[in-house]
Amino acid sequence: MADYQVPLKDMNFLLYDVFKNDTLWQNMPKLADHVDRETVDAILQECSKIAEQQVAPLSRQGDEIGVSFDNGKVTTAPGYKEAFNTYAQGGWSSLGGDVNYGGMGMPKVVTAFHEEMLCSADISFSLYTGLTAGAGLSLAKHGSEALKQRYLTRMYSGEWSASMCLTESHAGTDLGMIRTKAVPQKDGSYKVTGSKIFITAGEHDLTDNIIHLVLAKLPDAPEGPRGISLFLVPKINVNDDETLAEANNVSCGSIEHKMGIHASATCVMNFDESQGFLIGELNKGLVCMFTMMNFERIGVGIQGIGAAVKSYQNALEYAKDRIQGRSATGIKNPDKAADSIMVHGDVRRMLLNMKSMNEGSRALSTYIAMQLDLATYGEGEAQVKGETLAALMTPLAKAFFTDIGFENTVTGQQVLGGHGYVREWGQEQLVRDTRISQIYEGTNGVQAMDLLARKVAGSKGAMMQVFLDEVTTYIDETPADNMQEFINPLKNAISDLAELTQDILSRSAQNTNDLGTSANDYLHVFGYTAMAYIWAKMVEVALDKDQSGDDFYTSKIKTARYYFARMLPRTQSLILSAKAGSETLFDIDDELF
Amino acid sequence: MADYQVPLKDMNFLLYDVFKNDTLWQNMPKLADHVDRETVDAILQECSKIAEQQVAPLSRQGDEIGVSFDNGKVTTAPGYKEAFNTYAQGGWSSLGGDVNYGGMGMPKVVTAFHEEMLCSADISFSLYTGLTAGAGLSLAKHGSEALKQRYLTRMYSGEWSASMCLTESHAGTDLGMIRTKAVPQKDGSYKVTGSKIFITAGEHDLTDNIIHLVLAKLPDAPEGPRGISLFLVPKINVNDDETLAEANNVSCGSIEHKMGIHASATCVMNFDESQGFLIGELNKGLVCMFTMMNFERIGVGIQGIGAAVKSYQNALEYAKDRIQGRSATGIKNPDKAADSIMVHGDVRRMLLNMKSMNEGSRALSTYIAMQLDLATYGEGEAQVKGETLAALMTPLAKAFFTDIGFENTVTGQQVLGGHGYVREWGQEQLVRDTRISQIYEGTNGVQAMDLLARKVAGSKGAMMQVFLDEVTTYIDETPADNMQEFINPLKNAISDLAELTQDILSRSAQNTNDLGTSANDYLHVFGYTAMAYIWAKMVEVALDKDQSGDDFYTSKIKTARYYFARMLPRTQSLILSAKAGSETLFDIDDELF
Repeated sequence: MADYQVPLKDMNFLLYDVFKNDTLWQNMPKLADHVDRETVDAILQECSKIAEQQVAPLSRQGDEIGVSFDNGKVTTAPGYKEAFNTYAQGGWSSLGGDVNYGGMGMPKVVTAFHEEMLCSADISFSLYTGLTAGAGLSLAKHGSEALKQRYLTRMYSGEWSASMCLTESHAGTDLGMIRTKAVPQKDGSYKVTGSKIFITAGEHDLTDNIIHLVLAKLPDAPEGPRGISLFLVPKINVNDDETLAEANNVSCGSIEHKMGIHASATCVMNFDESQGFLIGELNKGLVCMFTMMNFERIGVGIQGIGAAVKSYQNALEYAKDRIQGRSATGIKNPDKAADSIMVHGDVRRMLLNMKSMNEGSRALSTYIAMQLDLATYGEGEAQVKGETLAALMTPLAKAFFTDIGFENTVTGQQVLGGHGYVREWGQEQLVRDTRISQIYEGTNGVQAMDLLARKVAGSKGAMMQVFLDEVTTYIDETPADNMQEFINPLKNAISDLAELTQDILSRSAQNTNDLGTSANDYLHVFGYTAMAYIWAKMVEVALDKDQSGDDFYTSKIKTARYYFARMLPRTQSLILSAKAGSETLFDIDDELF
Repeated sequence: MADYQVPLKDMNFLLYDVFKNDTLWQNMPKLADHVDRETVDAILQECSKIAEQQVAPLSRQGDEIGVSFDNGKVTTAPGYKEAFNTYAQGGWSSLGGDVNYGGMGMPKVVTAFHEEMLCSADISFSLYTGLTAGAGLSLAKHGSEALKQRYLTRMYSGEWSASMCLTESHAGTDLGMIRTKAVPQKDGSYKVTGSKIFITAGEHDLTDNIIHLVLAKLPDAPEGPRGISLFLVPKINVNDDETLAEANNVSCGSIEHKMGIHASATCVMNFDESQGFLIGELNKGLVCMFTMMNFERIGVGIQGIGAAVKSYQNALEYAKDRIQGRSATGIKNPDKAADSIMVHGDVRRMLLNMKSMNEGSRALSTYIAMQLDLATYGEGEAQVKGETLAALMTPLAKAFFTDIGFENTVTGQQVLGGHGYVREWGQEQLVRDTRISQIYEGTNGVQAMDLLARKVAGSKGAMMQVFLDEVTTYIDETPADNMQEFINPLKNAISDLAELTQDILSRSAQNTNDLGTSANDYLHVFGYTAMAYIWAKMVEVALDKDQSGDDFYTSKIKTARYYFARMLPRTQSLILSAKAGSETLFDIDDELF
């Protein structure tokens, strides 16, 4: 297995050359005082050391040994506790946190790269830190001052961790059906009772306390999603002097045995009249949750990218080293019994699929993270536009990057042949670990419906028009000359996307089923098209810099060519499928399946 | 997890209604005396009981416990030995075997269904029986009378099993580089010495003896693939009185720890001056191996179908049972808190993807198996045509059915959401078990090159023309009326395939790299197009029978509509990618990856 190497140069290229984040930060009053290029460079440097040296070496052992469960106690795999301590002591738990409570207040573009590094190194490890960061966002935005002073500060310090308790056995996508109850107490707190499943990091031995954010309903709450409230339920109660008090009747009933992420504790969590504190307003629990979700869902998308990047690095090392067969155009390495498998067109296809989609995904996720930053820290028109694009593209980030990420881990495994199927090379673990990212935090089917039904159709196409307008302006303003070969197909792709959007909007006005049956295809058409836009932006910069003699830029240009020749055409079949309508799916009775 | 149910009705529909195998058998002198509908029906009935009742229940436990290795001894998971004995005693090891040595002499269309059933039930189990059957084919065709009398008869009886020893650590796809040596002895036997890896069923406790077919080279053999010979090397030597003699210095060095098929022993096999017997002619080992390969490669393709069928059955049961959310067109089940997830367009999409591709794959694999039967048992023109189509479509069967099979196990897992990722539902095991089928028996990339470079380009398009002509004749001869909606898109698909073939042939005459870089796309275009042809043939029969009131036929027709509307359009993107040529893949230095 190749040692993981953080693609820092590519990250810098995106941050500064392509997306000019240094200028952006200077113009954002909420960031200008503490975010600049020097600080961010130092952070990414340090973070890459943690990922490469502390976290990546845990991954194989974490998979083999996994978490263990004994009578309610969950023990993480060897090395996780030490690595978590190093991580916490380095202050990394506060990277994206609110500066008023001890957070470092870094923008999403920076935390996104930090997430990618951790996920390339070990997705299981990244979940312990990621869930805490996600819960922190919700608490920072909606929690009372008292809750934030007591809990948020210690989540940022890494002293405590957090979990998100949403799913129940009968209520996953459909949270309106949850049964966990919260009964108001005289002191203003609540007694929370119920059972939650699939709770990542619900119980473990990494921290002294675990802060659960729990969705529950008051006894008299309205039915369905409008009756859900959000509560903070600590594993261990906290005394007024901030020391730990007695346990809070929160127990782990069991842990799941899963396909992958074996080192991540996926818990059944039982709450039995546990003391809880309301976050935000009563019956507005989903709103509080969704604050966090936009950030988290991009984070889950980035899991796909992270794993695929590691898979590519492994596959490339193997392909360069492995000799087998001869080139179709004549012997390339006469000194050896065979040529490197890099000579074979199909091996190059697999590697370039991965390379073009990984780099494209990283760039597109950076663009989406920027929209979140504009929405959070921007002002005026830019803020409003950022908010729109972030809302539109969050489901895209989650579903597209994880679908592509999974595909690329499978492709990376294929490059190694039989060696990709046995455990020792690590490629099969990446496939297993990544697979969950297409499922949790809202399945990719749910993301597709969020995009098409809630966002695109819900705004009668207006939200998508914001994106289309931006790209159309870019096309109009980009000088033809050496960008022609990229701008022309981009123009066609954008026109296809606009046309498909209109087609679905008018069809679904007649038959709402057309949304559900087109959603998955639509999301992927949007993804490849948005990625073509971002590839054009990257190649524009790379063409400018190509004279520098730095291979990095040459590689970008040639990878862009591959993307436009080989990957972007995937939209054409998806469009045909999306346009085929819903009749063939609904004109067949359930009994005929 | 749903109990596996063999789709016997669909198998019968294909054998008799669509492909008229009963008539075919009657007209084949080599089959007519022992193969008829009554016999075959009884065989499939009995075989389905074995698969459903004996083998399927082993699968979860086999995955959890797996095979164990202790100092050269390999122990299979609990229950495997008993099931293997039941299987052997039922005579199933001889199903496709030569009647002159105790085989049942069933055609490939029958053994193919038998393979599908076993693979739906448990791929690991199917490998112990499948490898023995495959080795039997090679031995029956190329072995001496003495070898066949001694070994083949006892492989057929199930008393002994077999393995195929090809791969070495440095020689997988490129077998020309193998180092295993065979030194001629005075008695006409050979001393075989070398180490083989990835040997399925190389060592285990199911049978008293294991017959290894080993590729090796004589000390003075020509270099490369033309110096490879095939040897029969028993684990235990056999006395003249047919009793077992001393061990033959064959040892298992270790077993692999793999992503899936945990109950299948994947062995490192060491031969140390082990006594071996030549099969076929010296230096013609690959020819002897390829006899078996056409049969085996379809068998591996069928592994993909088998697993995907099981995944569909599980997913369908779950989808009907699981309630979550409400239909987009209004509440469907007011008595419950939510509708079944069958109401959601994206869930129906996933299920119909699986259903249309599984049924299409079974039908297409039956068609390809028929070509093998025609090649083996046919006469005159039909035999020649069968041979051509079998050779052309074998790599298609192997790669297309396993790619689709893997996709469909992943899709089936997705239907279950989080429950698909945890182990207890069995869906994640199907994904892990199926993944290997895209790799072993020649990776799917190698299959694609076999199809495009060796078969299509090697025959200057002539072999593909045989297929194109058959479909064109079918299109011309099928009355338009109610088949119009299927024949029109089939016509376009065939025209696209013909055009793409010509395009690649003329481009690759200039640049041979264009074969390698188009091969994967080309194989899939061929697959979807061939499947459209077979769906048209199925729907033609179903339309005739639809008046019978049997839902089976209605379901076929509606599933065919889905296939043409939603799956066949996948060719369009593949064609664009295949036509993009090899420049973007080769005009980038290895260092720029």
